[in-house]
Amino acid sequence: MTPNDPLLTDLYQFNMLQAYLDGGKIDTAVFEFFVRRLPARRGFLVAAGLEQALDYLETLQFSDDHIAWLRDSGRFSAAFLDQLARFRFTGDVDAMPEGSIFFGNEPILRVVAPLPEAQFVETRLVNILHFQSLIASKAARMVLAAPGKQLVDFGLRRAHSAEAGLFAARASYIAGFAGTATLLANRAFGIPVFGTMAHSFIQAHDDEAAAFEAFARSRPDDLVLLLDTYDTEAAARKVVELAPRLKADGIAVRGVRLDSGDIMALSKSVRGILDAGGLADVVIFVSGGLDEDQLARFRSADAPIDGFGVGTSLTTSSDVPALDCVYKLQEYAGVPRRKRSVGKATWPGRKQVWRSLGRDGRITGDMLSTEDDDWPGERLLEPVMRNGRRLQQPPLAAMRARVSHGLDQLPDGARRLEEPSPCPVAIAPRLLALTEAVDRRLAAQDEDV
Amino acid sequence: MTPNDPLLTDLYQFNMLQAYLDGGKIDTAVFEFFVRRLPARRGFLVAAGLEQALDYLETLQFSDDHIAWLRDSGRFSAAFLDQLARFRFTGDVDAMPEGSIFFGNEPILRVVAPLPEAQFVETRLVNILHFQSLIASKAARMVLAAPGKQLVDFGLRRAHSAEAGLFAARASYIAGFAGTATLLANRAFGIPVFGTMAHSFIQAHDDEAAAFEAFARSRPDDLVLLLDTYDTEAAARKVVELAPRLKADGIAVRGVRLDSGDIMALSKSVRGILDAGGLADVVIFVSGGLDEDQLARFRSADAPIDGFGVGTSLTTSSDVPALDCVYKLQEYAGVPRRKRSVGKATWPGRKQVWRSLGRDGRITGDMLSTEDDDWPGERLLEPVMRNGRRLQQPPLAAMRARVSHGLDQLPDGARRLEEPSPCPVAIAPRLLALTEAVDRRLAAQDEDV
Repeated sequence: MTPNDPLLTDLYQFNMLQAYLDGGKIDTAVFEFFVRRLPARRGFLVAAGLEQALDYLETLQFSDDHIAWLRDSGRFSAAFLDQLARFRFTGDVDAMPEGSIFFGNEPILRVVAPLPEAQFVETRLVNILHFQSLIASKAARMVLAAPGKQLVDFGLRRAHSAEAGLFAARASYIAGFAGTATLLANRAFGIPVFGTMAHSFIQAHDDEAAAFEAFARSRPDDLVLLLDTYDTEAAARKVVELAPRLKADGIAVRGVRLDSGDIMALSKSVRGILDAGGLADVVIFVSGGLDEDQLARFRSADAPIDGFGVGTSLTTSSDVPALDCVYKLQEYAGVPRRKRSVGKATWPGRKQVWRSLGRDGRITGDMLSTEDDDWPGERLLEPVMRNGRRLQQPPLAAMRARVSHGLDQLPDGARRLEEPSPCPVAIAPRLLALTEAVDRRLAAQDEDV
Repeated sequence: MTPNDPLLTDLYQFNMLQAYLDGGKIDTAVFEFFVRRLPARRGFLVAAGLEQALDYLETLQFSDDHIAWLRDSGRFSAAFLDQLARFRFTGDVDAMPEGSIFFGNEPILRVVAPLPEAQFVETRLVNILHFQSLIASKAARMVLAAPGKQLVDFGLRRAHSAEAGLFAARASYIAGFAGTATLLANRAFGIPVFGTMAHSFIQAHDDEAAAFEAFARSRPDDLVLLLDTYDTEAAARKVVELAPRLKADGIAVRGVRLDSGDIMALSKSVRGILDAGGLADVVIFVSGGLDEDQLARFRSADAPIDGFGVGTSLTTSSDVPALDCVYKLQEYAGVPRRKRSVGKATWPGRKQVWRSLGRDGRITGDMLSTEDDDWPGERLLEPVMRNGRRLQQPPLAAMRARVSHGLDQLPDGARRLEEPSPCPVAIAPRLLALTEAVDRRLAAQDEDV
């Protein structure tokens, strides 16, 4: 399979597609993707994944092979399959640029397209935007918890699949990580890549010091030695002993890595051993089951740690492994629509989000309005695709700058790791009035029945 | 990218590979994959993903394109890249068959291969085995919580990427789900696929009853109508009114779906409306933010629900989004090895797991032994690959039967959803003795330094 295989969707998308085409329901539809409400441990979210979402939309089509398989399944009519062969996404998309900070109920992407197209892309669009936004949001908390430290994504092995690992590397880099251990992320996205050694490398040698030396001579660049296979402090002393011999051959030890034990205490004792051994410029890098709460504790304790490799908690967003996000129909054939399901009601119509800043440059609140409304502040949704063709997207560096700027704009309450307060999102009067009008129309229909 | 792109791994695997090849460390290594300890909310785990793991091992190779990119990166020597072009996995693998129940410290996969090969495959092997075992284990809890009910995977959209959604469909089917909504899982694995309609389909029509009828006439087979877009009970009455007209045209309503609101109360009132309307054979299907705890509550309350669509909590294993699993070197060049890092120590050597049953057919406990030991009970690890070529693997139906049988063998304490007690795993005396011998050897080395 390719990740964008058009069969990688819910069966019901095909059921609805055939019903729409059978019923001539091909007028323009407007769908919006948003997070209904923020989890308790998130004071803000970071939009990511738009580039992959646009890739998907731009390249969506059914090959002869797909059509043949669908025909053989016996589920679909010949007329429908003929239409499917010509099916493309031809719509318009507006979105918040990747790296934008956003809050609950705010659309970060709007699709305007013929109903069959706009509906069909739901599942994969949600799949792409949800995951990268989830990870970028988690990573941004780590960036806030460890200012000035080098953060590296170590999480491929426990990411939920290959693509998750690759996209997590991208999302965390957008959020401000220095890079990733995943080599393919370097090739695919140009993200800086970091790598040290595993415990097994040490174990495969009969002697730890010999293992350090063999590794150093084979991979002398950016040399980081792993200390905790047997006894961390003893290993630090071996590095002190080895370093002059390596230096004589032009090889510098850049750092050491601690991966287990009482990291707070070990970072201090190892720093002491290295400093006393003339290795004050060797950095200490820490990994092993880290999350943003631990990063914050290391910071509070002023632990002498220069960088962190963060794995599982990052690539699975372990405290919040999913966001309550949806892609909902807001308008069809020029008429605003609304879902009124209990606890899942939506604001109807095409919308825009406006951001206001206080005199201190911090966000005071956002306004959710109808698209044709006009409010002060920054307009957050902008055109990114027209007639199925994407407009120029910014490079990763610009997305990183956007996150960095956005984090600076967050009030302290939203930046807090524990019990954060998201910025308020107000509903514009015209959107409220539209919602009431839609409700009146739906009530009138119910009375007709 | 393809999911098995050999660059989809940690940079350190390449660093170590070059160091091993430079240093002639090419003797036979033994690595084992295991979960260190079970999370508090898991009384057992289910092994899954072996087929994809073997796919990866069997097809692993570097194309000219990969080699050229690695050369251009400037990180590696020409001699190393020449060796990489010929690099294949040529080793042996023993594993628990997919669908096996397992516990902490028990290897579910053992790799025996030249060290460079056995080491290099670590990241992707962990990535594959971790995720599918995670999801199969979560799904099995749902199967236990809802005996006799039809469970369907609805989780692609919030799965962590495309491959995660596809593999989650496979893992949950192995665990006993009836099928999935993901169409590609039907094509890729032959898993039964289910699909209804979305709220947007109802919203796109000006009238809910007209939407039901349009859908029924376009997709008459396996017809399930979604009731909760506006008012669930009113929608149920519309189904009662519509059903005779559809029946006259040979179309049967198979079921209705509830996706929001007070499901316990609504399932009863909708059942009443359907029964009173002569639709006693129409099933009630429920979805929307379900997990195994809710399934258990519906069961306790005897709610009239026939099936469940489970999404996010399944495909992200939301209460436990990762397992503490590792792939560790246990032997190199005939010498057992051991990592002694604090809290992460491992049992050395090649191992086997033996399972004993009581007179009631329930598991009394497992024994972890050295491979050459012999114990009563079922031997759980068996050969699955020799010299890089896989041996015949069982079909999905056999894996499902294995899970079903294994769940029956679990004692009540391990099956419990809350505060479960995993079955005990004893350490055989010869393995304990080997561990002590390895520790003595490592201590002697430390004294030499």
